[in-house]
Amino acid sequence: MKKNIVIVGLGLIGGSMARALRGFEDFDVVGVDVSQPTLRYALEQGVVDRTEEDPVRALAQGDLVFLCLHPQGILDFMDRHREHFKKGAMVTDVCGVKGAVLEGAAALPEYVSFLGGHPMAGSERSGIQHSVTHMFRGAHYILTPNGQTKPEHLELMRRVAAYIGCVDVVETSPEQHDAIIAYTSQMMHIIAVAVCDDPSLFQYRGFEGGSFRGCTRVAALDVPLWTQLFTMNAGALCGALERLEENLRGYRMALQTGDRAGLVDRLSNAAARKREMNRLDQFEQINND
Amino acid sequence: MKKNIVIVGLGLIGGSMARALRGFEDFDVVGVDVSQPTLRYALEQGVVDRTEEDPVRALAQGDLVFLCLHPQGILDFMDRHREHFKKGAMVTDVCGVKGAVLEGAAALPEYVSFLGGHPMAGSERSGIQHSVTHMFRGAHYILTPNGQTKPEHLELMRRVAAYIGCVDVVETSPEQHDAIIAYTSQMMHIIAVAVCDDPSLFQYRGFEGGSFRGCTRVAALDVPLWTQLFTMNAGALCGALERLEENLRGYRMALQTGDRAGLVDRLSNAAARKREMNRLDQFEQINND
Repeated sequence: MKKNIVIVGLGLIGGSMARALRGFEDFDVVGVDVSQPTLRYALEQGVVDRTEEDPVRALAQGDLVFLCLHPQGILDFMDRHREHFKKGAMVTDVCGVKGAVLEGAAALPEYVSFLGGHPMAGSERSGIQHSVTHMFRGAHYILTPNGQTKPEHLELMRRVAAYIGCVDVVETSPEQHDAIIAYTSQMMHIIAVAVCDDPSLFQYRGFEGGSFRGCTRVAALDVPLWTQLFTMNAGALCGALERLEENLRGYRMALQTGDRAGLVDRLSNAAARKREMNRLDQFEQINND
Repeated sequence: MKKNIVIVGLGLIGGSMARALRGFEDFDVVGVDVSQPTLRYALEQGVVDRTEEDPVRALAQGDLVFLCLHPQGILDFMDRHREHFKKGAMVTDVCGVKGAVLEGAAALPEYVSFLGGHPMAGSERSGIQHSVTHMFRGAHYILTPNGQTKPEHLELMRRVAAYIGCVDVVETSPEQHDAIIAYTSQMMHIIAVAVCDDPSLFQYRGFEGGSFRGCTRVAALDVPLWTQLFTMNAGALCGALERLEENLRGYRMALQTGDRAGLVDRLSNAAARKREMNRLDQFEQINND
């Protein structure tokens, strides 16, 4: 008998995951969503093998369950449907914060195996109509196993990651994941919105160069999603922001006090670090070719 | 008799300006540089019509003079060669700060007309070997005329801008130029280096997404050049940085105090501003097509 992958939430990421997982081993892909038009679209466009309106009926068949809702939606869903998972079900999520999700997952019954995940892909668009099969091609798939994670669950997720085209699987702790994401992604979004808060934004429009466009592109963000991501990772994000504010203040003080030698030192150090990063990236690219 | 455009400093911008100005009206393009290999390269590659080793001999023929050195180099050159400009010479520069350059130019003799300029183009490379004819195609050419600027000088520069392919000429005051550049360009470079100062840079390498790469690309900067640009525009830059620090702190405080409504307000406002910018840019693009 065929087994089922149940995708809860057919948005940009859930829809793309469903598309990418069609034909994986002996699994059917079953989509669940609160929106009727989304379910119709998913069937008509072949995003999934089957749809299921009722999450309880869907979960009863779910051997592998992907929670692809917004962060708070994932927490609410696990809380509401705690008792509805199939015995032996393996459950994972695709959410950009891991600490809060793992805390929520701790309340699941013992017969459910939960393994936190974050396939590092996305776009500024949203909705199933923007979902694509190749969304995860070349991406890192981060997993946060713990002592309770079944080895076969981890093995299955490694095969999933390979099947959907990820470049590698990185295992880390939820805390480490959240610290990484605070710095490499969330802080970039806060910088972008903070720059756009400046009254000069419209006043000086037309004079932006590549550096301005590169820095502010992500400011047009999905407010409910990012509010949840930021608040669920407030500790790590505030730490990263405090360090950034400190560094910015350092440059400003060097300028304000006319400390030219200090400014040169700081700029030389940072430019050398960035060049070393570029060198390492290039080196790896050559070795991956 | 042919007239001469003298380009002082054949680096990335001076070399590109020379290439772009070949054949302009009835002018010959004469290149001056302290480096013998650069002068040889300029002749061999047809970057200029002629080269001249001695700046004094070059200036004696210069009807239109472009100062294409680093900011401090421009100030030093004007100071050292104050008496060597041809009577009636029109002098301009291509430097990314205007207030300091205009102050330096105030000491030029009365028979010299100085008009500050900033063709908004460049790249992270430097040197004549990276100079290209199309460097200024589609760029804004900023000019900072004042009461002393001769109308024919302004007219000539408008024809220059059109000839080298600029999309428009924007006239503004040196102060306004420096405030614009502080926000749209210099602050982006300070953000990039401040992000790269974080100890997490190497620790979390491999997890950068598009937002991180977009924000930090310009951190590998030319330290002597940017030290001069930053220090010569310290007032406006520090003002922009203070506003940024204030905005960043606002987001951090909303997160730290759990002020979710405040965070949503801030994010909604900034995201809406950025979307409005995107809309205006798209609108103009459609109308320019």
